Amino acid sequence: MAIALEQKHLQSAQMKGFAMLGIGRTGWIKKNVPALGPYDALVRPLAVAPCTSDIHTVFEGAIGDRRDMILGHEAVGEVVEVGDEVKEFKPGDRVIVPAITPDWRSMAVQNGNHQHSGGMLAGWKFSNFKDGVFAEVFHVNDADMNLALLPDEIPLEAAAMIPDMMTTGIHGAELANIPVGGSVAVLGIGPVGLMAVAGASLRGAGRIIAVGSRPVCVEAAKFYGATDIVDYHNGDIVEQIRRLTGNKGLDSVIIAGGEGDMLAKAVMIARPGGTVANINYFGNGDTLPVPRVDWGCGMAHIDIRGGLCPGGRARMERLADLVRFNRVNPGKLVTHVFHGLEQVEKALLLMKDKPKDLIKPVVIV
Amino acid sequence: MAIALEQKHLQSAQMKGFAMLGIGRTGWIKKNVPALGPYDALVRPLAVAPCTSDIHTVFEGAIGDRRDMILGHEAVGEVVEVGDEVKEFKPGDRVIVPAITPDWRSMAVQNGNHQHSGGMLAGWKFSNFKDGVFAEVFHVNDADMNLALLPDEIPLEAAAMIPDMMTTGIHGAELANIPVGGSVAVLGIGPVGLMAVAGASLRGAGRIIAVGSRPVCVEAAKFYGATDIVDYHNGDIVEQIRRLTGNKGLDSVIIAGGEGDMLAKAVMIARPGGTVANINYFGNGDTLPVPRVDWGCGMAHIDIRGGLCPGGRARMERLADLVRFNRVNPGKLVTHVFHGLEQVEKALLLMKDKPKDLIKPVVIV
Amino acid sequence: MAIALEQKHLQSAQMKGFAMLGIGRTGWIKKNVPALGPYDALVRPLAVAPCTSDIHTVFEGAIGDRRDMILGHEAVGEVVEVGDEVKEFKPGDRVIVPAITPDWRSMAVQNGNHQHSGGMLAGWKFSNFKDGVFAEVFHVNDADMNLALLPDEIPLEAAAMIPDMMTTGIHGAELANIPVGGSVAVLGIGPVGLMAVAGASLRGAGRIIAVGSRPVCVEAAKFYGATDIVDYHNGDIVEQIRRLTGNKGLDSVIIAGGEGDMLAKAVMIARPGGTVANINYFGNGDTLPVPRVDWGCGMAHIDIRGGLCPGGRARMERLADLVRFNRVNPGKLVTHVFHGLEQVEKALLLMKDKPKDLIKPVVIV
Amino acid sequence: MAIALEQKHLQSAQMKGFAMLGIGRTGWIKKNVPALGPYDALVRPLAVAPCTSDIHTVFEGAIGDRRDMILGHEAVGEVVEVGDEVKEFKPGDRVIVPAITPDWRSMAVQNGNHQHSGGMLAGWKFSNFKDGVFAEVFHVNDADMNLALLPDEIPLEAAAMIPDMMTTGIHGAELANIPVGGSVAVLGIGPVGLMAVAGASLRGAGRIIAVGSRPVCVEAAKFYGATDIVDYHNGDIVEQIRRLTGNKGLDSVIIAGGEGDMLAKAVMIARPGGTVANINYFGNGDTLPVPRVDWGCGMAHIDIRGGLCPGGRARMERLADLVRFNRVNPGKLVTHVFHGLEQVEKALLLMKDKPKDLIKPVVIV
Repeated sequence: MAIALEQKHLQSAQMKGFAMLGIGRTGWIKKNVPALGPYDALVRPLAVAPCTSDIHTVFEGAIGDRRDMILGHEAVGEVVEVGDEVKEFKPGDRVIVPAITPDWRSMAVQNGNHQHSGGMLAGWKFSNFKDGVFAEVFHVNDADMNLALLPDEIPLEAAAMIPDMMTTGIHGAELANIPVGGSVAVLGIGPVGLMAVAGASLRGAGRIIAVGSRPVCVEAAKFYGATDIVDYHNGDIVEQIRRLTGNKGLDSVIIAGGEGDMLAKAVMIARPGGTVANINYFGNGDTLPVPRVDWGCGMAHIDIRGGLCPGGRARMERLADLVRFNRVNPGKLVTHVFHGLEQVEKALLLMKDKPKDLIKPVVIV
Repeated sequence: MAIALEQKHLQSAQMKGFAMLGIGRTGWIKKNVPALGPYDALVRPLAVAPCTSDIHTVFEGAIGDRRDMILGHEAVGEVVEVGDEVKEFKPGDRVIVPAITPDWRSMAVQNGNHQHSGGMLAGWKFSNFKDGVFAEVFHVNDADMNLALLPDEIPLEAAAMIPDMMTTGIHGAELANIPVGGSVAVLGIGPVGLMAVAGASLRGAGRIIAVGSRPVCVEAAKFYGATDIVDYHNGDIVEQIRRLTGNKGLDSVIIAGGEGDMLAKAVMIARPGGTVANINYFGNGDTLPVPRVDWGCGMAHIDIRGGLCPGGRARMERLADLVRFNRVNPGKLVTHVFHGLEQVEKALLLMKDKPKDLIKPVVIV
Repeated sequence: MAIALEQKHLQSAQMKGFAMLGIGRTGWIKKNVPALGPYDALVRPLAVAPCTSDIHTVFEGAIGDRRDMILGHEAVGEVVEVGDEVKEFKPGDRVIVPAITPDWRSMAVQNGNHQHSGGMLAGWKFSNFKDGVFAEVFHVNDADMNLALLPDEIPLEAAAMIPDMMTTGIHGAELANIPVGGSVAVLGIGPVGLMAVAGASLRGAGRIIAVGSRPVCVEAAKFYGATDIVDYHNGDIVEQIRRLTGNKGLDSVIIAGGEGDMLAKAVMIARPGGTVANINYFGNGDTLPVPRVDWGCGMAHIDIRGGLCPGGRARMERLADLVRFNRVNPGKLVTHVFHGLEQVEKALLLMKDKPKDLIKPVVIV
Repeated sequence: MAIALEQKHLQSAQMKGFAMLGIGRTGWIKKNVPALGPYDALVRPLAVAPCTSDIHTVFEGAIGDRRDMILGHEAVGEVVEVGDEVKEFKPGDRVIVPAITPDWRSMAVQNGNHQHSGGMLAGWKFSNFKDGVFAEVFHVNDADMNLALLPDEIPLEAAAMIPDMMTTGIHGAELANIPVGGSVAVLGIGPVGLMAVAGASLRGAGRIIAVGSRPVCVEAAKFYGATDIVDYHNGDIVEQIRRLTGNKGLDSVIIAGGEGDMLAKAVMIARPGGTVANINYFGNGDTLPVPRVDWGCGMAHIDIRGGLCPGGRARMERLADLVRFNRVNPGKLVTHVFHGLEQVEKALLLMKDKPKDLIKPVVIV
């Protein structure tokens, strides 16, 4: 790789990456440095983070089998080469690389949902149907539209939370139609749920009830703005939340973890006219249950929404502004820091094992 | 009753009404004319219509047991007496009476959903927890806020479709976020579904696929703007609609009939970023199924919405304008006309038996 | 040209076009056939229409001086050549060409307004800063994203109204937040205003008050759904409309013609909480006046909006659906039909002279 | 008054109040304690604040002449008596009294704008067309719908900022359609502007440019989340802001002070597709200027909005939640505290004289 980076054109070089070899198997592989189209960029990672969805992908086969696909979709990096038509980035630029890198020339964009350009969820390319960011170099489609400059004042650990954790968690709050001063529950306070707590606070929520139990997460939830903590070890969360709120029903409920029954619970604690917003990946079951009576037999005006996080450049620039203007400090999510790309394997397994003190690991490359 | 109407104050008089006596049983009963509060009105019906929900209420016990509750919530009438604080209506006024008569002084209204004033769905009072309109006289709460003048040029048959059929069907179209020229499916083309077809057309839909089979309904669907008819006798409707649309997915799907699995079917034909809007009363099952994979594992941005129809005066006035300015002719729904309040029993049973040529009966009183 | 079209590659050929030579001067010129980029198409017009804005451009210098710029931005045509990366169109396809052909790879698109890609209003390219469609051949940027197939069943005259008249007029209705059954005024009933009337009807307006006077336009306004006509020859239009509506104020007002004082008039007839939507090009004055007291001293919740029409493929496809499914017949706008590209000069002058019986001319090529 | 409060029914008693005697003249007057309707409450103030609009009313005759009208519309208080139909409040309850106390039974509410119930801006009653809160006792219409319990943990000084300053400033942010991480300018940083800064922060703005100059306000603006300060003493604010933002245009601009030309300046710094939101009372001039070219000749998609602040109970409850859950500390606005109702005169004159160190005075009664 050292040699490769000295070459003006990387395309003929080889690179290492940490890959899914097949369902349940991971390992380091060698691949050619990706080909560079006229609108594309090659980027070397400065910091990467493994994601729970990498775990689902590898160990549960959530997206089906993949052979020798490099993992990872959370990265900030340095541009090493750009195509002829790239106008706004050049080698040496430090950039935020969104997990979602849409094709902006698509009917989905014209319809308002870049996340689904090229098909449902297909704005998500890295470690889905394209090699990911756990490599010496990775490829970014449409660099001018998908990269954003990383402001110098944002530390790499915090920056690595922007491409997926921040955009996903905050998207939950956006989908949730939170009125100023409104009441919100966030179901699940892993790193995405914690960013949903921060997002609810950012959208002007009043009371924010966070549902979770691990002390490290509970402390972070309070840091990000949770006013109440509900622990499922203390009984049914629906009952607990109804008691807390005097049975009034919440303006907004954000689902950031759990299995399909979370959808049912979410509807049960929303008020008529409220909103349930999902940012969780539901991995099991043919159907997800909407509780008939709590949904007013279909007529309660409780909106049920859910969506893949926004990507692209404008989004990343605005999220970076949130960080540099101190609206949110995503660095608080990072409980474990590793150094060296080769540590990405260890970091990934940490996400699998979920030790008590883990929220999110970052690998500084 | 004739005597009663000659009295200045009706309250001490008696009146007849057609009632639910208990689950599965109906009959004529006598009751005192309802008491009149300062903001209320007493109205005698000029035309009434039975609703499928009356059938659910009586014969399926959908809202639980009710004893001697007068049925009916679709009426236009003539004001016979008003409370001291009523300023905008007087005896003799011909009025549209919405099925939904909210308490406008309520937190639900301040939160934007008058339908749920006093509790989920509690804007619906007539033949739910209050005597309905199948009586010589009925009571309207907050007359100034809930009644609307009936323009002379609207025939009674058409007018009787405004209080529930029109507001409900059109609400489906409103909830469905239809883009101008967008593609829509309406699942179910009973009278509410037909008004949803009309509503989709009113909101500027392009293609409208109506799902149903009875010839009288199919013909009416085309009248109201359906461009394609899908008949479930010809195979799975999801498959048929996917074939019709080249698998593109629809902008909007309106559910206007069927059991819980209709929710699953609706999600399966919506595009990423599309909307599923329900105006159907789901009467069975603990849960309604959202198909996990078709809903993008929770991330497809397919909004799932559903709500009780809007009521109140402003709504009724705007619907009346739609009729008198010839935007919609709801009279086309009325296939059977009866004369005399006593015919309401026959009309109701017609809704139960659903003869081939029925869309909706009206009783002119 | 005949020769040119037989060549496989047109780029070296020459073509004729009707151009603005400078402010106040028009004429036929020869130019090289435009260069074709990998995502572009060359199209020969099948039908074109001159626009009032062509008149403003040439005779009022509305967009500044232009030398030898081919005029015209309303066309349907036939694809004659496509770039290597164009996947969804091929020579021979009959297409609708929107007046607005955005760069879809732009921050404006990521912010939700393709019309302003490349700068304010810069989605408008033809006859603004690029040669227009009054030529033997014209160039379309990003063909896959900006062209739409023209359905066979739409006659060319009607089709030529889609690229600008329909999208602009309907956009007025979209911006105007019309509630179902709501009251609307459309100020100005030239071809754009007439499509705004149609748009208001399409969005479900009840009463539609059209302001204009020429009999041919009045008749068309009624055809498209106007319920009332207000003629400024009969006195101040604000007074007339207030009288018509019992001083209630309208839900929505669409400005589709006139000078800056139209903005003041529009605010004066809107209700608190209503919307004023502009689709007119205001050509004169440093400022446009908002009437202070009628705007509630800044606090009346009367939204004032205005925007360039949407372009691009998805929009054109949906508008084409409106026409082929008989929701709107834009052909009614076309009062004068010419044959042969050379007639475009005569058609343009007709727009300048505005004879009594003119709404819109079309040139069939 | 002491005697009055011992009586069970206050209506026959007399009370003192600080009133506008006529344009330019103020003084203490005696009036009968207001009559109590069945839905109303009588409240004695615990803390009140004078408002710039009281100054406009008295000294500029902004709302026309008023004789012997008690001033003041910002108060928290204690309920002393309630009407027979009041169910949720009782004497002794400590309450927040919104400046805007709508008639919830009104068509304006059905149309979505309670602020304009009874006519444009007529949701504003206190010290507009009804005696205000600078009295020993004042009257609140529809207590159940317009009062909110004051949580014990909120100090009176901070609480007195909720009824008008908070709801107005935050409404500016709500109207401004701020995207998460978006760029905002707030023009004017008096107390309302400062709450607009806080509101922008609450809705998730990134960069917030505050325009003002007084050091006490600048310091508070930073406290509430401003990232940049622009001082008009340093040159044209439009030029300064364009320079700061690299001419990109802002997502949102909130006008919270100044004369009509502020509207022009606001449009000049918004981006195409952005929003200008006004919460300022424009007191002078027949018209307010919209700059034609900067508004894209009417087609820039820059929405211009403006509205009176929301009132009513649900709003006050949510704002109280913002304060008690530490999302905003409106107490920072209060620079001067007086004790005793008789000090209200001094506090009002302070608003007139605007000493250097003033943001907002409060009178603890």
